[in-house]
Amino acid sequence: MPRKSLKHHLYVIIFGTHTRAGRAFDIALIAAIITSLVVLILESLPSVMTEWSQELRYIEYTFTALFTLEYLLRLYCSPKPKSYATSFYGVVDLLAILPTYLAIFFPGASFMGVVRLLRVMRIFRILKLVRYLQDSNVLLRSLLMARRKIFIFFSTVGILVIILGSLIFVIEGPHNGFTSIPKSIYWAIVTITTVGYGDMVPQTNLGKAIASITMLLGYSILAVPTGIITAELSNEMNAHKELVKCPNCNRSGHDSDAIHCKHCGSELADPDNRVVAGDENEKSS
Amino acid sequence: MPRKSLKHHLYVIIFGTHTRAGRAFDIALIAAIITSLVVLILESLPSVMTEWSQELRYIEYTFTALFTLEYLLRLYCSPKPKSYATSFYGVVDLLAILPTYLAIFFPGASFMGVVRLLRVMRIFRILKLVRYLQDSNVLLRSLLMARRKIFIFFSTVGILVIILGSLIFVIEGPHNGFTSIPKSIYWAIVTITTVGYGDMVPQTNLGKAIASITMLLGYSILAVPTGIITAELSNEMNAHKELVKCPNCNRSGHDSDAIHCKHCGSELADPDNRVVAGDENEKSS
Amino acid sequence: MPRKSLKHHLYVIIFGTHTRAGRAFDIALIAAIITSLVVLILESLPSVMTEWSQELRYIEYTFTALFTLEYLLRLYCSPKPKSYATSFYGVVDLLAILPTYLAIFFPGASFMGVVRLLRVMRIFRILKLVRYLQDSNVLLRSLLMARRKIFIFFSTVGILVIILGSLIFVIEGPHNGFTSIPKSIYWAIVTITTVGYGDMVPQTNLGKAIASITMLLGYSILAVPTGIITAELSNEMNAHKELVKCPNCNRSGHDSDAIHCKHCGSELADPDNRVVAGDENEKSS
Amino acid sequence: MPRKSLKHHLYVIIFGTHTRAGRAFDIALIAAIITSLVVLILESLPSVMTEWSQELRYIEYTFTALFTLEYLLRLYCSPKPKSYATSFYGVVDLLAILPTYLAIFFPGASFMGVVRLLRVMRIFRILKLVRYLQDSNVLLRSLLMARRKIFIFFSTVGILVIILGSLIFVIEGPHNGFTSIPKSIYWAIVTITTVGYGDMVPQTNLGKAIASITMLLGYSILAVPTGIITAELSNEMNAHKELVKCPNCNRSGHDSDAIHCKHCGSELADPDNRVVAGDENEKSS
Repeated sequence: MPRKSLKHHLYVIIFGTHTRAGRAFDIALIAAIITSLVVLILESLPSVMTEWSQELRYIEYTFTALFTLEYLLRLYCSPKPKSYATSFYGVVDLLAILPTYLAIFFPGASFMGVVRLLRVMRIFRILKLVRYLQDSNVLLRSLLMARRKIFIFFSTVGILVIILGSLIFVIEGPHNGFTSIPKSIYWAIVTITTVGYGDMVPQTNLGKAIASITMLLGYSILAVPTGIITAELSNEMNAHKELVKCPNCNRSGHDSDAIHCKHCGSELADPDNRVVAGDENEKSS
Repeated sequence: MPRKSLKHHLYVIIFGTHTRAGRAFDIALIAAIITSLVVLILESLPSVMTEWSQELRYIEYTFTALFTLEYLLRLYCSPKPKSYATSFYGVVDLLAILPTYLAIFFPGASFMGVVRLLRVMRIFRILKLVRYLQDSNVLLRSLLMARRKIFIFFSTVGILVIILGSLIFVIEGPHNGFTSIPKSIYWAIVTITTVGYGDMVPQTNLGKAIASITMLLGYSILAVPTGIITAELSNEMNAHKELVKCPNCNRSGHDSDAIHCKHCGSELADPDNRVVAGDENEKSS
Repeated sequence: MPRKSLKHHLYVIIFGTHTRAGRAFDIALIAAIITSLVVLILESLPSVMTEWSQELRYIEYTFTALFTLEYLLRLYCSPKPKSYATSFYGVVDLLAILPTYLAIFFPGASFMGVVRLLRVMRIFRILKLVRYLQDSNVLLRSLLMARRKIFIFFSTVGILVIILGSLIFVIEGPHNGFTSIPKSIYWAIVTITTVGYGDMVPQTNLGKAIASITMLLGYSILAVPTGIITAELSNEMNAHKELVKCPNCNRSGHDSDAIHCKHCGSELADPDNRVVAGDENEKSS
Repeated sequence: MPRKSLKHHLYVIIFGTHTRAGRAFDIALIAAIITSLVVLILESLPSVMTEWSQELRYIEYTFTALFTLEYLLRLYCSPKPKSYATSFYGVVDLLAILPTYLAIFFPGASFMGVVRLLRVMRIFRILKLVRYLQDSNVLLRSLLMARRKIFIFFSTVGILVIILGSLIFVIEGPHNGFTSIPKSIYWAIVTITTVGYGDMVPQTNLGKAIASITMLLGYSILAVPTGIITAELSNEMNAHKELVKCPNCNRSGHDSDAIHCKHCGSELADPDNRVVAGDENEKSS
């Protein structure tokens, strides 16, 4: 441990999650993020906007100031600011404050569209919350391990959707609402994912047949990603079992809370290769 | 066992499920609940209400009287009435009779809406049936063990829905029906859960693209909760693990091929001490 | 084996699936069933009915005659006719011929509705095909073993649907299309199963909130039955592993094709408790 | 290895994926396929077609020329051209060029429909990409191993859909949009797959009841294919089993904790003979 400098102190509070101060800071930050999101959503309600636009803008400025301060402090106290600024969270923290400043510097009166876009872009502040979903790494690892299979699955779906979309485009044709292949592919996606808006539906019998095939396909291939994730997850969740081996009879398959080998009863070595999620996350952030 | 006082006798009949009288009482109660629900549902049918309103009201009063009696008896014979009155079922039992009395004391002519709301609250009485689905504890335990992962999953869905809703709000805008961010988030939920009412559909090409991404996301992330539950369930369902207890340290969780207790290393006995779910549940109720 | 009487001969051909004649009979029967279904479906097309009604009726009579013959033969050659007549397949075989006779004896001119019903009831002939899905017993066994959990799941869905339906009924009210609790429950089912017809959609904000909860509920609890079936299925598929034990080291967990114990290398007993699906099915039919 | 003739050289470049030239060829091919798909999709946009039809046709001709060259080269350098021409990829490669030639030889002016069909048929070029999804063989093997169960599942769905469709046809009748059994079966598919377009919805109460049952059925039986695939996949993904081969009898399929070959009982060696997927795929292509 280095000496407790102010910088390090700040680091522990802002980036850390183990000290009481650190936890307090995190909770305050979460509260601020959620409040600012509520403000943003309220701003989108015409009724509210007409009455409270002024107040909402002031609140918005306050939050922007707070998040700016947070961003600068993070830059200051982070051991390597560059890597933070370029990290996922660094970019998110910047995105969280940028829009307001842009909206100020380019007076919105002239081009509302951009300003509305900027105002809504602040929604990405929600990504600041992702920092607090860190314990999802079992899920993430499963998804990572399955990424090849998932990519293959999506490629297959993509190919199916393009073929089925083109078929329905030829069969139904423009006069039934299938005016182009992209629109028909959109229909195929709506159908294969079993969403079924009903804004585009086949009229001809052949089209209905294709639609039925698309639905049954979508209905059943849904099983594939589920199978992939499930298989990976149960592997992940049994990972430990494979790790620990009995020093005496050298058999594996022990639970994470096993102290004795269930086969020969001799003591098991302590499981000392357990990674403390918190630590590595701080490093990665 | 204490001496068979009337109070204890009632307790065994009303709260118990093992004696013949207790089972008879439960069956009668279920019948009463279901009938009263049918009455309540019939009351909602205008055609029925015009003709039979009088009869239905009388039936309604009868049931309320019965359930009031049941509530008072439970309060009387329960060993600790306070804890029952404050327990989940205690509150439900009270909620089940309250509306009718309120409807009597405050003549509904003035504010029917509220009274109807109260009367519909009686639907919660059906939760009393949950008490008879005791074997759901394998499912419940799996869900409990997975609650962290499930919470993370829902947070992710929440974040996705807010971001996608805001994007579609900016892209489609009010003139296409996306009049506010909350409504757009509602659309995002309708789409990501693959419900697809079709009451709000994107009109622009960019909007359709966002919609397609939302659908494919919803279609594939559905795999995650399934994977979680499945993995937990198959753990849970490794029934033997739950049944065999170590005769020495009395800990369970041994594999079906375990010969020695993995905790203390002593030999395991044959599985003969199955826990009777009913008993502990009664205590918890 | 008894002596090859005509009766037994017929039995082997009609009920059996192992002899060449038996297989030929089955294939002919499947062809007949499917053709009669096609005829039935064609009859429902007005355009076809106007032109070919006469021909179709004759074809229909032919098939009915054939199926009647089959039914009588089955009754004749079955070792215990009563148990066949009362078995699932016996009832189905009767259902397959009854409607036509009813339609003949009660001349349809008078009450078309009933006749249409009778004609369509012949669709149940398709159930005759179920006899040839016999190899589904791994699936069936899994479903049977999971039936308790599945029942609990459906009860939960039922309770949820009633509560959510009543809530939406109170919130939206008749003027938004939610005219009664049954209709509202129908809406809740449409929503929780993520079907989302869009014929009934909430108009109020509170209603939209309830709808969102319903969707997310339906979206995620779908994971539960999947988890149940998957867990049961993988148990079923690993069942054998648990059955065979090594005679030397008495450890289980061997694959179905294992000849030697993977732990100590000693020979395994032949797996002679493998049930031949075909045989028992014939008995059960 | 034969001597490095031009023919073999081409073979390595066109069919191979391990040499730098081979990889370069593949990347170029993928780029060509995707570009030609984009062109095809653009052609379907009326706005684009009116302006750029000429240019698009020329681009189209170029791609057809390129793919023709590729096809001829493959025929030339493949060790056994016949088996390539009749293989899945051979047919696909032919399908990718045929339509354009047909469109040229039969001047479209006369019968537009066929030409539009031919033009869109070129979409099957996308199947040329399947060649690059080769690593999906774990998925494919799982699906193959589960094909019996999947077939049974689809038969069951088919039977359900026909019965439910016929029921709704009888209940709702033509005046509610259920004009024929095929259309009603289409509705049943739309409902059981939880797509729910909403173009056909039951009006009567009995119809709504049938619909509810259909939805709940579709909602829950979705669990079955998922369970099947998952169970098969986790078997497949027990990677070790696939890798370790017995040095004596050369059979694989041993558990990760196997010390002796379960077939012949001889000691197992360390897993060192991993199969390189690429090689066998080339053979199979």
